[in-house]
Amino acid sequence: MKTKKSDRLILVTNDDGYDAPGIEALITVMKDFGKVVVVAPIEAQSGMSHAITIKVPLRLIEVKRNDGVKMYKCSGTPVDCVKIAIDKLLNRKPDLLASGINHGINSSVSVFYSGTIAAAMEGALNDIPAMGFSLNNLKPDADFTASIEIARKITAVFLKKDLFPGKCININIPRKPLNEIKGIKVCRQAHGMWIETFDKRTDPNYRDYYWLTGSFMNYEKEAKDTDEWALRNGYATIVPMQTDLTCYESIQKMKDWKF
Amino acid sequence: MKTKKSDRLILVTNDDGYDAPGIEALITVMKDFGKVVVVAPIEAQSGMSHAITIKVPLRLIEVKRNDGVKMYKCSGTPVDCVKIAIDKLLNRKPDLLASGINHGINSSVSVFYSGTIAAAMEGALNDIPAMGFSLNNLKPDADFTASIEIARKITAVFLKKDLFPGKCININIPRKPLNEIKGIKVCRQAHGMWIETFDKRTDPNYRDYYWLTGSFMNYEKEAKDTDEWALRNGYATIVPMQTDLTCYESIQKMKDWKF
Repeated sequence: MKTKKSDRLILVTNDDGYDAPGIEALITVMKDFGKVVVVAPIEAQSGMSHAITIKVPLRLIEVKRNDGVKMYKCSGTPVDCVKIAIDKLLNRKPDLLASGINHGINSSVSVFYSGTIAAAMEGALNDIPAMGFSLNNLKPDADFTASIEIARKITAVFLKKDLFPGKCININIPRKPLNEIKGIKVCRQAHGMWIETFDKRTDPNYRDYYWLTGSFMNYEKEAKDTDEWALRNGYATIVPMQTDLTCYESIQKMKDWKF
Repeated sequence: MKTKKSDRLILVTNDDGYDAPGIEALITVMKDFGKVVVVAPIEAQSGMSHAITIKVPLRLIEVKRNDGVKMYKCSGTPVDCVKIAIDKLLNRKPDLLASGINHGINSSVSVFYSGTIAAAMEGALNDIPAMGFSLNNLKPDADFTASIEIARKITAVFLKKDLFPGKCININIPRKPLNEIKGIKVCRQAHGMWIETFDKRTDPNYRDYYWLTGSFMNYEKEAKDTDEWALRNGYATIVPMQTDLTCYESIQKMKDWKF
């Protein structure tokens, strides 16, 4: 990994949109570590996961700034942003990809739905060191002060270390002032799930429609090595994630499947 | 798992839309194994991955059929279809979830972008035995004759076995007549990636736009235990997939990260 700040090219994206306070917090952090290029969605893309845009073409528009940071807004998803940045905007593969800071937590199985984490995973698929950051606060006026400090600490360490190829890290930060955050813990993804309850309504034309609502169920509340436990107990969490989704244990178990 | 056909409730979905030939092929297979309920997208949702619909509500419309199969079209993504089926349409958790048969291959890292496979993964997150099927043929008039036989064989075995909880299987079928398919192979996900080349054009108003195009790069062409190798060599493939994305090897490696 590049060791000098002046040599480092950092791609920043998110899923809340290019004008979200969370991405400004992340830009603040990343400017201390290298040359920053931002490519982020024009509109909020929460819940878009690893979606790519196939049916319509993408638009890409430069957003003028005064701080030396190149910024583009893109009409696509977070993963589209990463892909178009690599192909069309950057003259070489970035040294680091930072996604976020998401307004809302992305622990446990929320990683499946999150555009923020998908962008980091897309980085990992491209063998770019990649980090996804989320703050446990959905509000548009969330305070990112503590998150900035935590992100700075983690980035400083991350840039000195090498993950295995094809991995990335998922960082979640509790909604607390910095002096109440107990530390930074490396964890595993908690086993849990979202239980959906669609809210059925009827429109003025007498036709039904359904809003997605749900609540998270943690299936292992007492497991202290999980991200959920650590977050609930005041820690910022890091879960290393892999892009090989094969279940090797199952391959062994399936040896006796005869067709 | 339920052993009697009359007791089995099977949820079928896809990402090509409720009226795609591939889902009819899958319904043909699944009718032999239990009571089938179909909930599939109104429009094609290829590349939608594990996206969920948050910004707009969903519509759900029954599609009348004469073959005893209950079918609904849903305005959302494949994962929305699974979620709304479980919450609003089925009176109990299905015994099996079958997604596909996709018009196009979903091997290697294509699982990240595929709505077909995301629906199967959503089944796994719900602890429903789940299978995603794809045929290596993008054409709307693709011949599913061989795929139907392969899917029937795999389903018959799958229903007699138990995967570990939270796992599902990803099945890819080569574009060949049945007598040229060499067999069914349990594999791992090949290490590869999609290299994007956006096609830049200019609209009649002199503004640029970009179409996503790309080609798949297999980084381990000679590895015979991968889905890519097996497919290229005439086998149908099964990759068992996991929903715990934690990289445990990395947790060990990160023990010396000091913050």
